[in-house]
Amino acid sequence: MPIDPAAPLEITAFEWVPEFAQGFVRDLRLRWACEEAGLAYRERLINAVERPQWYFAEQPWGQVPALRDGDIRLFESGAILLYLGERSETLLPREPQPRADTIAWLFAALNTVEPCGIEFANLNFFGANEEWARLRRPSLEEFIARRLAPLEQRLAGRDWLTGGFTIADIAMVTVLRELADSAAMRECPALAAYIARGLARPAFERALADQLAPFSTHAPQQPTENDDGR
Amino acid sequence: MPIDPAAPLEITAFEWVPEFAQGFVRDLRLRWACEEAGLAYRERLINAVERPQWYFAEQPWGQVPALRDGDIRLFESGAILLYLGERSETLLPREPQPRADTIAWLFAALNTVEPCGIEFANLNFFGANEEWARLRRPSLEEFIARRLAPLEQRLAGRDWLTGGFTIADIAMVTVLRELADSAAMRECPALAAYIARGLARPAFERALADQLAPFSTHAPQQPTENDDGR
Repeated sequence: MPIDPAAPLEITAFEWVPEFAQGFVRDLRLRWACEEAGLAYRERLINAVERPQWYFAEQPWGQVPALRDGDIRLFESGAILLYLGERSETLLPREPQPRADTIAWLFAALNTVEPCGIEFANLNFFGANEEWARLRRPSLEEFIARRLAPLEQRLAGRDWLTGGFTIADIAMVTVLRELADSAAMRECPALAAYIARGLARPAFERALADQLAPFSTHAPQQPTENDDGR
Repeated sequence: MPIDPAAPLEITAFEWVPEFAQGFVRDLRLRWACEEAGLAYRERLINAVERPQWYFAEQPWGQVPALRDGDIRLFESGAILLYLGERSETLLPREPQPRADTIAWLFAALNTVEPCGIEFANLNFFGANEEWARLRRPSLEEFIARRLAPLEQRLAGRDWLTGGFTIADIAMVTVLRELADSAAMRECPALAAYIARGLARPAFERALADQLAPFSTHAPQQPTENDDGR
């Protein structure tokens, strides 16, 4: 538990990814939510390098994660966090204002903060040893700093984004991890403490271990330009 | 109607923005949803150049839009689209699988496609006349092309992302508009037709006119590095 081959909830993840992506593929968000909520799930592992053609009918970009729950199919980690949140009052409060706050911060993580994280990852991945990346980095760091500053303020003197720990924190902590190596993050001690608080949760530790577990038993494939799970 | 100063729904928007942002600020998404659903709303217009300090308590980045509905406060256009969708069965179906599809595509628009649009906008805005932008453009165009290809396939022979027109289409059409000038988009005739279909809806036309209306009556301020509404 919560990995249970007989569970009706099924999470699709990769059987192996290159080292830089290990521990960062977005099925981690769902595993973390399931661990927090005590929701059992089964895994369906696919090959990230040679993605099965049938999978694109379920996930148009061939990204992970995807969810099946009985007959229901769903993709996009944000959509699935919301779906799982409906199963757990602690992860998604039922009272109207706390619920609104949680959903607002969930979208803030994925649509206001994560675009920085994706551009930063593109800079580091596609831009390794590229002149454009060297020239762009300063202005991108400024852009990131402007996105992080209000968050730093929000989390000073507060453990989680809203009252208790919710799906918004699962999204935000995993998004902020993508920015851990940015210069802007070094100016944000409250965010660093927030990330550390999130990663210290036993549910996160179990989720991470379960994402990593299959990687060691699946032989590395040829290197690929990995299109991160979403 | 639906703009009604007595309506309980309140949308915060900018009273004026620089020309390049006119018609693209994200309160447009909410106005469009309200028009489609016949939901009356009142406007609260704020200054984009000198954003009022009190507004940051409602929207941590000072972005628009924000929503108030009686005592409920909400920010992030995606979160608010979902909230408005709960008021309209056509914009957010009630049946479990169509509902799941709509929410999945809403997040796909905002978390899989829009990060390309933001990086593309950053390239064009911060990178105008910059060497890094010239060097980065080809690989960014490849990244955009990979994001658009599955969408192009999805929308070939289909009017809208899921069955009927939903909040997912409001998000996706407005996101794709941000990529209209990309080379990748010129290879996507089904997407071009999809965008045109969206923009031809009378509800979009009214929403656009209502966003633009206040701009002409508010004197231009000094130029600013506009942080687009979200």
